[in-house]
Amino acid sequence: MTPTFRDSELVNLSTHLLRAAGATDEEARTVSKYLVAANLAGVDSHGIIRLTEYVDGIRCGLIKPGSKMEVVKETGSTALLNGNWGFGQVICTQAMELAIRKAEGSGVSAVGIFHCNHIGRLSEYSTMAIEHGMICFIAVNSDPSVAPYGGKQAILSTSPISYAIPAGQKGPIVVDFATSAVAEGKVRTALSKGMKIPEGWIVNSAGHSSTNPADLYEPPLPPEQIKLSGALLPAGGHKGYSLSLVVEALAGALTGNGCDGEVKSGITNGVFIVVVKIENFVPLNIFKSTIDRLISTVKSSPRAEGFNEILIPGEPERREEEKRSKDGIPIPDASWESIVKVCRAYGLDAMSLARA
Amino acid sequence: MTPTFRDSELVNLSTHLLRAAGATDEEARTVSKYLVAANLAGVDSHGIIRLTEYVDGIRCGLIKPGSKMEVVKETGSTALLNGNWGFGQVICTQAMELAIRKAEGSGVSAVGIFHCNHIGRLSEYSTMAIEHGMICFIAVNSDPSVAPYGGKQAILSTSPISYAIPAGQKGPIVVDFATSAVAEGKVRTALSKGMKIPEGWIVNSAGHSSTNPADLYEPPLPPEQIKLSGALLPAGGHKGYSLSLVVEALAGALTGNGCDGEVKSGITNGVFIVVVKIENFVPLNIFKSTIDRLISTVKSSPRAEGFNEILIPGEPERREEEKRSKDGIPIPDASWESIVKVCRAYGLDAMSLARA
Repeated sequence: MTPTFRDSELVNLSTHLLRAAGATDEEARTVSKYLVAANLAGVDSHGIIRLTEYVDGIRCGLIKPGSKMEVVKETGSTALLNGNWGFGQVICTQAMELAIRKAEGSGVSAVGIFHCNHIGRLSEYSTMAIEHGMICFIAVNSDPSVAPYGGKQAILSTSPISYAIPAGQKGPIVVDFATSAVAEGKVRTALSKGMKIPEGWIVNSAGHSSTNPADLYEPPLPPEQIKLSGALLPAGGHKGYSLSLVVEALAGALTGNGCDGEVKSGITNGVFIVVVKIENFVPLNIFKSTIDRLISTVKSSPRAEGFNEILIPGEPERREEEKRSKDGIPIPDASWESIVKVCRAYGLDAMSLARA
Repeated sequence: MTPTFRDSELVNLSTHLLRAAGATDEEARTVSKYLVAANLAGVDSHGIIRLTEYVDGIRCGLIKPGSKMEVVKETGSTALLNGNWGFGQVICTQAMELAIRKAEGSGVSAVGIFHCNHIGRLSEYSTMAIEHGMICFIAVNSDPSVAPYGGKQAILSTSPISYAIPAGQKGPIVVDFATSAVAEGKVRTALSKGMKIPEGWIVNSAGHSSTNPADLYEPPLPPEQIKLSGALLPAGGHKGYSLSLVVEALAGALTGNGCDGEVKSGITNGVFIVVVKIENFVPLNIFKSTIDRLISTVKSSPRAEGFNEILIPGEPERREEEKRSKDGIPIPDASWESIVKVCRAYGLDAMSLARA
């Protein structure tokens, strides 16, 4: 039976493991909070399944626990931050706080981060702006895994973007997606479940379209360290490809994080953040009621064939959060086994930590 | 035979017509320059085919020639502008100049416009930032024509976005696309050519997928004034839909232009602009060489089956521009006839104006 845990149990387990692997107390707590928040929202690809990767990252020196974020360049409304290879979750939280503070003063701010590790789910950060009456955009780049439109070699990263938009009674609108046809994690999930994937997600090493998730990876499978032999495809052909280039330019070139193969590890992220204060344009309550009305109109409009409901971006995750907060978070067997294994390497018993 | 003109000939014709219809000298020149620039780039849907609509807009009082743009709210890095229903091209050019000036000072700026008429092709404006060493993002909303993902009623606008990113020897990267599966103009073009359209572009009034472009419009056809009976579909399902909601929030709700049916005319645009100064993050020459290298890597990478070449966003338009600058701009018969007709209404002879 698939083990199921309360969020607090997984946070406890994760915090202990990260501390044992060398993270400071604060890092372990922050990172664990974000990982489990992804599980709660149903985005298991960004949840505690990442623990083995993070622990490995510390061991290899990619993640440097205790590192302090450094402001390299700064004006009233912009900042460039060196993450000094600390935990992405810790750095990006501080970067968002800075971006919000700057937007509070000047109405708009832009913050870039380089030398930063995996920040996880983008919407954890973009939504921080909402309670301040602000709109946030985040773009993130990483190592190459996506072919350009018309190509078959992995050159671009999955280049996810997120937008968080405040609403009143409804919403908020929370957009968070990879500009590739699909996140790499979904191919990995299909692989672990022995399932086929839809046409249009990947090409194999020869550049041919494939529905076999194994074709994305270098053998042996399942991979210990992810190495791609094929490539993911961009979302919606040239449109996803164009957005991916934009993300590489913002999160890679503009931050100095690098792009086009300069990023060597899948747990390295370049991050670019823009925050806009709504009151600098229209009164916040009017903005919110406009968005509420837009949401109502969309949701109450007639449905296309095959749809039971029209959803707002962010809504499926909020529902899952509610459900899993009550019913617990199921952890797939393979993920649980890998966590048990990495805990054991540090002399820890995963199950008793979780149930402690 | 399809009439073909030099760009200067079309600018001359357009300027005379707009002046005759009531535009000031400066407005007529600016608007004509932008319309013909779209024709030069091969984007005929945003070219002088729009003249009849604009002349009609003046006649109905939607476009108010001679109106001055007004700054409603302003800080060092943000501004909200009332276009006072002047020509979109004139207002948006001034808005971009303001956004660039503000980003020069503070490193990032955000400018919104409401009560603005059709600005045409977004990339005409976003690319203005390039020579200043800046990256620009523009989002535009208009009247409803696109169904939400899972819906079948037109609620969202085609919500185009543009990004302009400086490069060195290569590029620039110029992204400019509708977040709908396709721009409405392409369906209109297929209709006028008696062609079918691909599955996934539109649904008919009953909400069924259709390959007949006529199914998008209220009869009688061809439409004098565009009224939709069906709806366009979002690009790439939920991703295009999500982006479209973001554009409605930024260009509609945040500017006060309105969204969700508040925008009554297809020539009304809400505009939201963000400009970022590259030197506030990394040295401009380093940024440019990073983008150059990214472009080289993408373009020289192995091609997928069925592709002769990998293109960079903006490249097809630059090639067409070069070609049409030399060979002239072919104007489809139907478009030419409509221009001849509207010229005649003002006692003007289109052909002799063009050839003057």
